[in-house]
Amino acid sequence: MPDVIPADSVGIVTPQVTQFDTPLALSCGQTLSSYQLTYETYGTLNSIASNAILICHALSGDHHAAGYHAMSDRKPGWWDSAIGPGKAIDTNIFFVVSLNNLGGCSGSTGPTTVNPDTGQRWEADFPLVTVEDWVESQARLADKLGIQTFAAIVGGSLGGMQVLDWSTRFPTRLKAAVIIASAPKLSTQNIAFNEVARQSIRRDPEFCDGHYLQNDSIPTNGLGLARMLGHITYLSDDAMGAKFGRQMRHDTYQYNYDIEFEVESYLRYQGKAFTKRFDANTYMLMTKALDYFDPAAHTDGDLAAALSKAECEFLLVSFTTDWRFSPERSEEIVDALVKAGKSVAYAKIEATEGHDAFLFPIPRYMAVLSTFLTRVASHLTEKTDAL
Amino acid sequence: MPDVIPADSVGIVTPQVTQFDTPLALSCGQTLSSYQLTYETYGTLNSIASNAILICHALSGDHHAAGYHAMSDRKPGWWDSAIGPGKAIDTNIFFVVSLNNLGGCSGSTGPTTVNPDTGQRWEADFPLVTVEDWVESQARLADKLGIQTFAAIVGGSLGGMQVLDWSTRFPTRLKAAVIIASAPKLSTQNIAFNEVARQSIRRDPEFCDGHYLQNDSIPTNGLGLARMLGHITYLSDDAMGAKFGRQMRHDTYQYNYDIEFEVESYLRYQGKAFTKRFDANTYMLMTKALDYFDPAAHTDGDLAAALSKAECEFLLVSFTTDWRFSPERSEEIVDALVKAGKSVAYAKIEATEGHDAFLFPIPRYMAVLSTFLTRVASHLTEKTDAL
Repeated sequence: MPDVIPADSVGIVTPQVTQFDTPLALSCGQTLSSYQLTYETYGTLNSIASNAILICHALSGDHHAAGYHAMSDRKPGWWDSAIGPGKAIDTNIFFVVSLNNLGGCSGSTGPTTVNPDTGQRWEADFPLVTVEDWVESQARLADKLGIQTFAAIVGGSLGGMQVLDWSTRFPTRLKAAVIIASAPKLSTQNIAFNEVARQSIRRDPEFCDGHYLQNDSIPTNGLGLARMLGHITYLSDDAMGAKFGRQMRHDTYQYNYDIEFEVESYLRYQGKAFTKRFDANTYMLMTKALDYFDPAAHTDGDLAAALSKAECEFLLVSFTTDWRFSPERSEEIVDALVKAGKSVAYAKIEATEGHDAFLFPIPRYMAVLSTFLTRVASHLTEKTDAL
Repeated sequence: MPDVIPADSVGIVTPQVTQFDTPLALSCGQTLSSYQLTYETYGTLNSIASNAILICHALSGDHHAAGYHAMSDRKPGWWDSAIGPGKAIDTNIFFVVSLNNLGGCSGSTGPTTVNPDTGQRWEADFPLVTVEDWVESQARLADKLGIQTFAAIVGGSLGGMQVLDWSTRFPTRLKAAVIIASAPKLSTQNIAFNEVARQSIRRDPEFCDGHYLQNDSIPTNGLGLARMLGHITYLSDDAMGAKFGRQMRHDTYQYNYDIEFEVESYLRYQGKAFTKRFDANTYMLMTKALDYFDPAAHTDGDLAAALSKAECEFLLVSFTTDWRFSPERSEEIVDALVKAGKSVAYAKIEATEGHDAFLFPIPRYMAVLSTFLTRVASHLTEKTDAL
């Protein structure tokens, strides 16, 4: 909790909710007749609405990317290290929009909200939404906010997939795409880890086939397990080693199944903490959105062809110790963009943190992001002058 | 099932059971007053008992390493590719001993056998046994078989840890140590994966705090999950990709939680099949034995010092795509042995199969093993001649 709001913070922010009554046809074939999106904004939209940046969140993210909701908050938003006055995503220059995606559990329409057709919470009946559905809904949010063209759309991991989809679905609606620690599609191993996470949740009797809320139940064991596994894959072996090593709880082995090594305690704690803030159906749905994303599926596996419609500039960023979305996966996107003749910059950042690195203010990473966005901003100014 | 026993097979084998009535003091402080070990042997012990090789099994292995129990067997023993007449571990030359370790679930005393003191099955009350305990019990088995000194002791993964412990616990009782795809101790990430596996089992209500048999129950969901996770870590990302890619069950996405990708089906099947042949308490206990092994813990982390008592020749083997026990981990052992002035050969084998590679008859791997053991055999002959 901050005693004083730091000078480079966006300060106290208030989430906003907006209602959409135009039906949204989803990839799965179902239609959402109406829905709400919860979002936050930081900075000021300029008079020609040319300085907006959209932030797309990853698996367990939400709209609260920067600043504080109250002075009593223990922590700021999940990407506060990158968003604020003078930071890499500089709110003195840009108007930043960050939303909770459809299917989320932080205020937007999803499994935990009420289905207006039944008066009951959706729970497991909420349709499986895809990256493409999210991008459609984000474009509608942009319409409401009066943003025809984003200066940039930025996302890490699953967020990066949304950015990639934006670049070809609405090629004229973004000037720049920033895709961080992402992949053009999941590897078999990625899908396999997701399936274990889903099975962890589904096999918890408290899951009640996904209708746990109406049964006054929460699948904390299964969701906690899924998160424990996730944590291992977000961190590098080296990072876990540096943080915990074989550090023991007691001076000698206890020879039982209580905590022997501190890393066990850490994982159990992280798993449990997650179940207090996140919904199991949303977690399942997010893993499926990851699995389904495969833009080259419609071009016979040719990613360059799939990206041919893009018109924006691209920045790709990867991290050396990220094994969940390794640098090679980012380089597949880079190679396809080069082949398709697009403008693309790429930085592979030395980092010890594994996939989680995309959330850390690693100096070279922040410098790359800042430099790229400063150039984006310089084009904005020219355009403003020209009008 | 073989129509005819292949010429390079050890053929039909019959497991043997031997009873030990000398109490065994365990690392955990408890004592087993009596116990049984189940084992198999292949080949013939020579007159001076100098040609014996001990095979130490890994996490889910057992005594049935080679040959068939019956003509109706669907598959031979787990390491049949390496053990047999003319194979790398040549039963024309060597007398091979393979046992089910204490705490196992394939015939040796463990959680599924009856505790003579209570008349009930041990289940979760079976003491946690360690690599060191196993080596003590293996030495007693050698005594019974009239083997003072093994020509070689061979093991992969957790089996390799047993070999490493043999080399210093009974330095005069083995001429050669073959340590495959192993590590001097688990990394933090390894421990973390083990903890997720254990939590998967413990959180299954059918686990009944480890007393599921007396409750006519089996924690199939939890044990299956643990095995699914294990499978991912035993295979390389590339191997999973080559085997399954993003191969789909249907022509189009179904947008539900049934099987979309074939890898999901494979994992569910593997998980389920495992629960039919393996005991959950044994699985838990094996993961703990892995966690606890750390020979350098008694020498201030100096592995070379810990290995200084060894007298045998060493062969270390690792596999390029093994990320659960990476080549770097084998090289830590190699470096320590070199530092300690021991005789050590090392081969890093190109393989696509990940950690599982140690079970495959990869030509260079088999050649390295065969060449090393042929040299071991040549020393035997000299010794035989000299007598």
